[in-house]
Amino acid sequence: VSRVAVIIAAGGSGRRMGGVYKPLLELGGEPLLARSLAPFLARSDVHAVLVAVPPELHAAPPAWLLADPRVKTVAGGSERDESVRHALQAVPPDADVIVVHDAARPLVPSEVVERCIAAACAGRSVVAAVPVTDTIKRIAGDGTILDTPDRSLLRAAQTPQAFPAAVLRAAYSHAVAHGIRATDDAALVAGAGHTVSVVDGDVENIKVTTRLDLALAEVLLAGGET
Amino acid sequence: VSRVAVIIAAGGSGRRMGGVYKPLLELGGEPLLARSLAPFLARSDVHAVLVAVPPELHAAPPAWLLADPRVKTVAGGSERDESVRHALQAVPPDADVIVVHDAARPLVPSEVVERCIAAACAGRSVVAAVPVTDTIKRIAGDGTILDTPDRSLLRAAQTPQAFPAAVLRAAYSHAVAHGIRATDDAALVAGAGHTVSVVDGDVENIKVTTRLDLALAEVLLAGGET
Repeated sequence: VSRVAVIIAAGGSGRRMGGVYKPLLELGGEPLLARSLAPFLARSDVHAVLVAVPPELHAAPPAWLLADPRVKTVAGGSERDESVRHALQAVPPDADVIVVHDAARPLVPSEVVERCIAAACAGRSVVAAVPVTDTIKRIAGDGTILDTPDRSLLRAAQTPQAFPAAVLRAAYSHAVAHGIRATDDAALVAGAGHTVSVVDGDVENIKVTTRLDLALAEVLLAGGET
Repeated sequence: VSRVAVIIAAGGSGRRMGGVYKPLLELGGEPLLARSLAPFLARSDVHAVLVAVPPELHAAPPAWLLADPRVKTVAGGSERDESVRHALQAVPPDADVIVVHDAARPLVPSEVVERCIAAACAGRSVVAAVPVTDTIKRIAGDGTILDTPDRSLLRAAQTPQAFPAAVLRAAYSHAVAHGIRATDDAALVAGAGHTVSVVDGDVENIKVTTRLDLALAEVLLAGGET
């Protein structure tokens, strides 16, 4: 049985929501962060959960967050990749697989979590992703359309993203050594020379960035039929 | 002053909404189609509006739809491009500019309509578009990620799309002659050798495809803060 460590990126300052700290906003009466954690805490193969939070929250974390003994907070950095890097240093050395998930995706279905972890346990580096529904145009700097990439070969990346532990550690070492920054762990892993694949995400696994997203999440949580 | 003809693509069978004909679904007490038409009917430079609807609706259109004498229905085809082609044949020969808009985008702001029409009156072929907020991955057929296109150079196409009349007519002739099909008028125009550019769309100009989208549109209409 593989040992799974989970990194939750919850460092965001929520600039788009007027400085409110998003992960503690409530959705259906529960903090976004609690909902984002739940499907991981429900798994017996998850043995460590590192939650990267702003330093002031790391200094005084809410009691509910540490109710499960597997959960620890770490002080996040100023950018997402720095937060993940800090969390990575706190991952137990015996972890076989590391999953990274955004606190801003509170509606992640447990099936998506399972697909990501199962793939990483089989040695693959994967990112949950969904088909792109918009027609995407590639433009030049002056707004001229260059082309319309074949939509059937495009995917919108979500989290979780899951990796064999050694692969993610090596990717972050490579990124630090070469000064590479990215908001996307899969891109860092690919940049270090590893193959990354997509697994099926879920259209309801939305990223809550704006108040409108939060309203949409409430609709989804209430069971809005798609 | 330019004479503007508008084609509203309202032929969709709404397969994703269980066979319901979407354009007549109500949003805030008004049919989607009525809301999609309104910003065009408010303009004095719009002298003809062709609404491509399913044949059975063309045979018996609702009275409100024809209340403005500039509006005519045409029988749509089985696919969107066929519907637009039918409507194109009913555009008055003296139109200088043709705008194509989807009935499924009922929240299009009048400013976006103005930007599209102004550009086409100046001889440009344009599509309303917004920045892409997701990280987009390009994949191979087996799900392996090939690369992560620079998001700053990607745009999600919306409607309206607006063209000098001769350009759109030529593009459809070219498409018919070469058997080219597309769900996107801008792609047909580009395929005929014309330069197409983006103009700023609006994130609230969503396409209502699912019941979830409709719920989101109700939130937007109610003035949900973003």
